Amino acid sequence: MSRLSLNQWTTRRWSVPDAVDGCRRHGIEAIGLWREPVAEHGLAATAKLVRDAGLRVSSLCRGGFLTGGSGLEDNRRAIDEAAELDAACLVLVVGGLPGVVPGEPLGDGVSRDLKAARARVAEALEELAPYAAERGVRLALEPLHPMYCADRAVLSTLKQALDLASPHPADQVGVVVDTFHIWWDPEVYDQIARAGAEGRVASYQVCDQLHPLPQDVLLGRAMMGDGVIGFTPLTEAVTATGYDGDIEVEIFNADVWAADPDTVLATMKERFTTLIAPALA
Amino acid sequence: MSRLSLNQWTTRRWSVPDAVDGCRRHGIEAIGLWREPVAEHGLAATAKLVRDAGLRVSSLCRGGFLTGGSGLEDNRRAIDEAAELDAACLVLVVGGLPGVVPGEPLGDGVSRDLKAARARVAEALEELAPYAAERGVRLALEPLHPMYCADRAVLSTLKQALDLASPHPADQVGVVVDTFHIWWDPEVYDQIARAGAEGRVASYQVCDQLHPLPQDVLLGRAMMGDGVIGFTPLTEAVTATGYDGDIEVEIFNADVWAADPDTVLATMKERFTTLIAPALA
Repeated sequence: MSRLSLNQWTTRRWSVPDAVDGCRRHGIEAIGLWREPVAEHGLAATAKLVRDAGLRVSSLCRGGFLTGGSGLEDNRRAIDEAAELDAACLVLVVGGLPGVVPGEPLGDGVSRDLKAARARVAEALEELAPYAAERGVRLALEPLHPMYCADRAVLSTLKQALDLASPHPADQVGVVVDTFHIWWDPEVYDQIARAGAEGRVASYQVCDQLHPLPQDVLLGRAMMGDGVIGFTPLTEAVTATGYDGDIEVEIFNADVWAADPDTVLATMKERFTTLIAPALA
Repeated sequence: MSRLSLNQWTTRRWSVPDAVDGCRRHGIEAIGLWREPVAEHGLAATAKLVRDAGLRVSSLCRGGFLTGGSGLEDNRRAIDEAAELDAACLVLVVGGLPGVVPGEPLGDGVSRDLKAARARVAEALEELAPYAAERGVRLALEPLHPMYCADRAVLSTLKQALDLASPHPADQVGVVVDTFHIWWDPEVYDQIARAGAEGRVASYQVCDQLHPLPQDVLLGRAMMGDGVIGFTPLTEAVTATGYDGDIEVEIFNADVWAADPDTVLATMKERFTTLIAPALA
């Protein structure tokens, strides 16, 4: 239980102070923060609040969206924020095909050149990794489920994330292992082991996959146990790498967001105890 | 154009005679058949109809659904049907996690053991491959997009399909390369080349991916050019393998099904000419 971290998007209607207080009341020792609510509360105020509460910041979400060839300035700001918050990593969601807007029909000017989009991510990382390193911030490349390849992340597998990270030192660029995004991957156990051997597991996130998927597939994430994912082998594989950092629960789900956040935290703790914790031994 | 094949599900409201007549009127030389409409028209009658029309049967869809540990009897029947139709291959959609029903909420008795489900497919293939070989039928393993891993196919990548096929002779067990299912895969070019080197490309299917995905993600397939996929590099890669068989267009899409099938065929021919044919040289 001491490794459980609340990603604040799971309790999306809570402000930063609400979420920090929720963690305190439920005995949760770490939090994954998002830039937008942090900006709302103020960066310095958030840094002080979490420090005073004794919470670890397991990640800051998120930088990225690099495939369009711009966005470096905003990513540098995100790195600065991660530094001020003393976040264990800055999560990067790299972006989809240029011109493809999540949730909107395709317009003119959409690129279908996946290879070029992927190359642009590697180029942007060349710029950002040294900047992050100077500020003591670790970048965490997050492969997203292939159903988001067009609009959110051309980074689709753990292998691809590790290949992309490989030119950079492991303490500068790591990867996110998120069960929702990678559970289906036939190579996932080899690649988790490789991530461990290379010292690149920057974050472990647990979250289930709804079935059937909802109309907006972005909201297809679910509380552990409410979907199709078997958590034991994945958690055992991450444990075998030696990863002993925080384990975040990040859920985008209309029903979870509509529920009382305190009930969500109680359920989260219970599911973590029954479905995740036994495989951490 | 001589390699263009109409998968009959693209013009789903057409019966077998309608589809055969549509191919004749539009100068299409090959057809991909489905077992249900074939049964409706009669197996022997269908075999005679397509033979008399001079159509090649580029595939029969479909066998599979092997993860539950049953279904072998029905797959043997599908093999017999493919033999009688002289189909170039029998497409196998291997099935999802046992107990997960497409489109329905999770009930009790759902298995989350993905590894076991995958092992069961390999075991079933041991049974079916020799039976198919005796009847001159080639099995074609179809990796499906990972968003269907839970409910339709635990076979998610071309690499996994080739690994699964590898114990069997290439003329007995091949793979389907379907742009919709594999376009996002960072390994896809290496694996298409491997499929070529191993002589296992049994079918090339072209179909786009809608954006955003519709409520039923099964219907996320689209006419080439109406989605996010860049067809040129994929088609060039398949061409480079030496594959010179038929190229099927298989579209599950509510708007395509609602449209006049003759209009769909006219559009299909035009898009094949502009988006696919130039990369076949």
